[in-house]
Amino acid sequence: MTEIEAELDRYLKRLFPLCRSITGEPNRETLRILQEIIPLTIHEVATGTVVYDWIIPDEWTIRDAWIADANGQRLVDFQVSNLHVMSYSESVDAVMGWEELQPHIHKHSDLPEAIPYRTSYYKRDWGFCVTHAQYAELKKQQGELTVVIDSELKPGSLSYGEILIPGQSSQEILLSCYICHPSMANDSLSGVLLTAFLARYIAELKDRHWSYRIVFVPETIGAIAYCALNEAAMKQIDIGLVITTVGGPGKFGYKNSFDPAHPINKVIKTVLIESDVDFITYPFDIHGSDERQYSSQGFGINVASIFKDKYYEYDYYHSSLDDLNFVSSKQVAETLSIYEGLIDKLEARRIFRRTNPYCEVMLSRHGLYQVGGGALWPKYGGRSELDLILWLLFLSDGKNDIRDIAAILQASSSELELLADKLVEKGALVPC
Amino acid sequence: MTEIEAELDRYLKRLFPLCRSITGEPNRETLRILQEIIPLTIHEVATGTVVYDWIIPDEWTIRDAWIADANGQRLVDFQVSNLHVMSYSESVDAVMGWEELQPHIHKHSDLPEAIPYRTSYYKRDWGFCVTHAQYAELKKQQGELTVVIDSELKPGSLSYGEILIPGQSSQEILLSCYICHPSMANDSLSGVLLTAFLARYIAELKDRHWSYRIVFVPETIGAIAYCALNEAAMKQIDIGLVITTVGGPGKFGYKNSFDPAHPINKVIKTVLIESDVDFITYPFDIHGSDERQYSSQGFGINVASIFKDKYYEYDYYHSSLDDLNFVSSKQVAETLSIYEGLIDKLEARRIFRRTNPYCEVMLSRHGLYQVGGGALWPKYGGRSELDLILWLLFLSDGKNDIRDIAAILQASSSELELLADKLVEKGALVPC
Amino acid sequence: MTEIEAELDRYLKRLFPLCRSITGEPNRETLRILQEIIPLTIHEVATGTVVYDWIIPDEWTIRDAWIADANGQRLVDFQVSNLHVMSYSESVDAVMGWEELQPHIHKHSDLPEAIPYRTSYYKRDWGFCVTHAQYAELKKQQGELTVVIDSELKPGSLSYGEILIPGQSSQEILLSCYICHPSMANDSLSGVLLTAFLARYIAELKDRHWSYRIVFVPETIGAIAYCALNEAAMKQIDIGLVITTVGGPGKFGYKNSFDPAHPINKVIKTVLIESDVDFITYPFDIHGSDERQYSSQGFGINVASIFKDKYYEYDYYHSSLDDLNFVSSKQVAETLSIYEGLIDKLEARRIFRRTNPYCEVMLSRHGLYQVGGGALWPKYGGRSELDLILWLLFLSDGKNDIRDIAAILQASSSELELLADKLVEKGALVPC
Repeated sequence: MTEIEAELDRYLKRLFPLCRSITGEPNRETLRILQEIIPLTIHEVATGTVVYDWIIPDEWTIRDAWIADANGQRLVDFQVSNLHVMSYSESVDAVMGWEELQPHIHKHSDLPEAIPYRTSYYKRDWGFCVTHAQYAELKKQQGELTVVIDSELKPGSLSYGEILIPGQSSQEILLSCYICHPSMANDSLSGVLLTAFLARYIAELKDRHWSYRIVFVPETIGAIAYCALNEAAMKQIDIGLVITTVGGPGKFGYKNSFDPAHPINKVIKTVLIESDVDFITYPFDIHGSDERQYSSQGFGINVASIFKDKYYEYDYYHSSLDDLNFVSSKQVAETLSIYEGLIDKLEARRIFRRTNPYCEVMLSRHGLYQVGGGALWPKYGGRSELDLILWLLFLSDGKNDIRDIAAILQASSSELELLADKLVEKGALVPC
Repeated sequence: MTEIEAELDRYLKRLFPLCRSITGEPNRETLRILQEIIPLTIHEVATGTVVYDWIIPDEWTIRDAWIADANGQRLVDFQVSNLHVMSYSESVDAVMGWEELQPHIHKHSDLPEAIPYRTSYYKRDWGFCVTHAQYAELKKQQGELTVVIDSELKPGSLSYGEILIPGQSSQEILLSCYICHPSMANDSLSGVLLTAFLARYIAELKDRHWSYRIVFVPETIGAIAYCALNEAAMKQIDIGLVITTVGGPGKFGYKNSFDPAHPINKVIKTVLIESDVDFITYPFDIHGSDERQYSSQGFGINVASIFKDKYYEYDYYHSSLDDLNFVSSKQVAETLSIYEGLIDKLEARRIFRRTNPYCEVMLSRHGLYQVGGGALWPKYGGRSELDLILWLLFLSDGKNDIRDIAAILQASSSELELLADKLVEKGALVPC
Repeated sequence: MTEIEAELDRYLKRLFPLCRSITGEPNRETLRILQEIIPLTIHEVATGTVVYDWIIPDEWTIRDAWIADANGQRLVDFQVSNLHVMSYSESVDAVMGWEELQPHIHKHSDLPEAIPYRTSYYKRDWGFCVTHAQYAELKKQQGELTVVIDSELKPGSLSYGEILIPGQSSQEILLSCYICHPSMANDSLSGVLLTAFLARYIAELKDRHWSYRIVFVPETIGAIAYCALNEAAMKQIDIGLVITTVGGPGKFGYKNSFDPAHPINKVIKTVLIESDVDFITYPFDIHGSDERQYSSQGFGINVASIFKDKYYEYDYYHSSLDDLNFVSSKQVAETLSIYEGLIDKLEARRIFRRTNPYCEVMLSRHGLYQVGGGALWPKYGGRSELDLILWLLFLSDGKNDIRDIAAILQASSSELELLADKLVEKGALVPC
């Protein structure tokens, strides 16, 4: 196990047991643990706040829950798995027979061994989620059952984490993960941890070009609250990544952003190909995660995702089998490495424009022209530096990325970038 | 004969004999008869009014006209056919020989039996139109001929009919036909009657979506006057139909609007294909009818036409053989039914946009989300209602027609429309 | 030899010996001789003037220069060829041995017989350019060598010539050539003379449509100064031609402007094809001549060039062998004739728009409609005049060139142009 895998492993194990939801203390605890990795700021949005079409619901606290038989034996116990209680269940303390209880009991349709994952955030309800064996056991009980959910719904706040990492350019790239799932490892814990580690990677990048806006929000309501509270900033963003389900044992995959022609999709594909891994390409779909908010008409951010065992697609999705047997730190580290490669590629995207668009720059005045002519110019793959400089100045119009220009010129983009930096230094180009 | 055919037949017979022109009492009489079918408003534009590059000419009245031989025998007689007199002929009362008369006599180049149709609206002139037999008879006359046209050209007005049928959307569709032809049945009487019946059909549509601007104008000068008097409204219109030559025994056909990629052309083609009739496709041509005005650069309305024996194309065009033997109410009813299908298709075109473009709509708050999940959602052709709602909200950007969206989603457009209506009712979408 | 060839021949011989550079009296002398051909205005820009990123350098005067052996024998002599002195060499009067001299001696890498062409405008330096034989002779000298350059660098001005030839349209076409080369015939003398003769041709065109801005500038610094001093006018120009290397014995060729889809490229290709000559097509390249300035982002003029032995491509480029043995007046006259054909084609480009975009023009009111109908209309290649007039009015939207319209209608563009002129005269169209 590498050092990074070991570190990931420790955090997976610490964070897995917490009973996260869209609000609540375990969310704050999760964010506080992530602060050990990166200095994120924890924000609180008061319950009752209207965010676009939505209202932040009351904060949920769960202390304990069980179903006990006539002998007081716990047949279903929240202490065993927090998935046993439907998230946002209201408080119950009752004695009832199977017939009354049954509508509140949920089991997985396909996996007998699994406890399914259920929520009821906006409709007041309560429920237990059980294995098929537990279901049978409950059903066969003759006597009365004691049903307790020791929970509370009351005014409080929704918590989210945010870190803004500035770069040379004020243009931001959005990274978003969701912190609202209880004990499931691929969905969403793997994404939360990967995002924190990736944020640390970005923060350590020298000469970072782009700025990064990295958020840890409860899915949907948290992303919507974030958009509403940061509308102006979010409208300026062009590229986003929603990071989730990145630690499974299965194949890599990526989901295209809504505009298939947007460069982010091509860059991701290139990274995956260059990583020499098998991967599945998913078209954009309005179903998914918080791209539903970020890509809505008002924001129009091109949001893509890289997965390892994409949500919806793996058998253990939304069940207790999505655990630390299914997810390993090694698998998360593999996807982290792909994401780091993507950041490198995005950092390599550079867009420049002429400081003054009229006529040529006087190269010799800026020490860019070597009197004495052709033979003295350094050559880059068959083209002279002079040649590349002239083309760079001609094509840098504030829209062409340096890689597009490199493709046009059949030149190396890293060499072009060095030249562009030189031209920026000389005042001939301005980075965008 | 169906009821509608019988009704069309009665109107064809009543309207056929009237000696219509670009102005005059028979035009008003025609519009008054059409008022029995639909409540159109009759407007009068004073002669002498300047409309763009044109001036409304004096009003023309024709009472009688003939050419008689030395014995007083009428060789050519307006009472037999109003086509015998060139429209807008000035008054004549003279005795003359063949040589003097001959330049005023017009015969059909190809059809010996036919009286050709001639006009001279803007150049003061007079003339008679005759069959080849009449021409020979006149030519062989030795004695003087009495030539009488009892007509009058004097200040008055140009008359047109108009009916505005409002719909839920203020966006209008233009329907136009021309009322300036005397006793010819396919060109233009069939179009005038079809337009009136189609207007009635539209007026009776329940929950009509679009608004309709339906005009009965003399061709060219009437359409130009209409445009000049309604410039602001006409500039807002996107789609138009010029309805003419719709009652012949020959093939159906349609003429494309000037932009072949405009949806109106595809919709017409679909209607014709679905009607299972043979049809001819005509490209846009600047020759034609009042699309010359409506599609001019200043208005740019995409105007198309559906025909049954298109003008220019049938042998009897602009002759006395274009009569009620050539045109039957059955044939007009067939084309009417196609046009009704087209209106249905246009009504099915619906364009929506998000009320608030930021983030998702909270479906459950609007009763649009069924807690309990997947299995409970109604399915439409393999897609759940939730799926369609999410896509509809994402793609309704004020430009995509619901049919385009249906094509993208491979879904039924009528089902999508129901969902769109529901979303409008919930305040999530606004129809355009 | 034709009359025009004889005339070109006289000017080639008079202008060839002058020791032109980017500034100096020989440039003025060149412009004064060109004034015999066309009435160009000579402008002076003071040295030290800042033009965008550049500064006009001091004016250079060269009177004499030589390298003499110990016996006073001139081994290299400016009087024999002005190419022997590097342009902008500073003054020298020294006695030195070969080792000290050697860094200042330049020979051609490939052509032993040739004196290469060298300049050092912006870095203070001096140098001699010699044949391989001279180089060997200098090298073997044992004694001291006398090295004299009798030159002067001092405040003065940069000179350029300009002629504005107005046309019916205020839209200008740019013609540019460079006058900064000393005794070389193809580069750039042939281009300078051709431009002057072409200007005369244009000035004599009857009913000239476009306006022409024709400039004779020192390459780069002169073009940049011209752009800076005429920025507003230059930003309005769409089409330009840089005329150079047009008199070699080799193939014709043309270099595309930066937007390959711009009409200028197609028009040039058509002219070359119709001239029935072999030619080479060069893509746009940021290397080249003053298109580097005119096509820069701030101006964006689509500049193309027609060549006969393009710069860079012929062996004698930038050497004393590019002389009047290599270039003949016959060859220049051939390219002149191609350029005249191009001007004719550009003149034939005509763009019109409707005076009033609403509805049709009343043709009869303007004497454009012949009452009496079809048979009387003149026919042009199967289409009647009426037909062409209607289409012209419909399609003349201020963007479509009359040749584009002719292609759409499969009609003759010269006939269409006559009709367009008629419509302009009648007030229905306005030329752009």
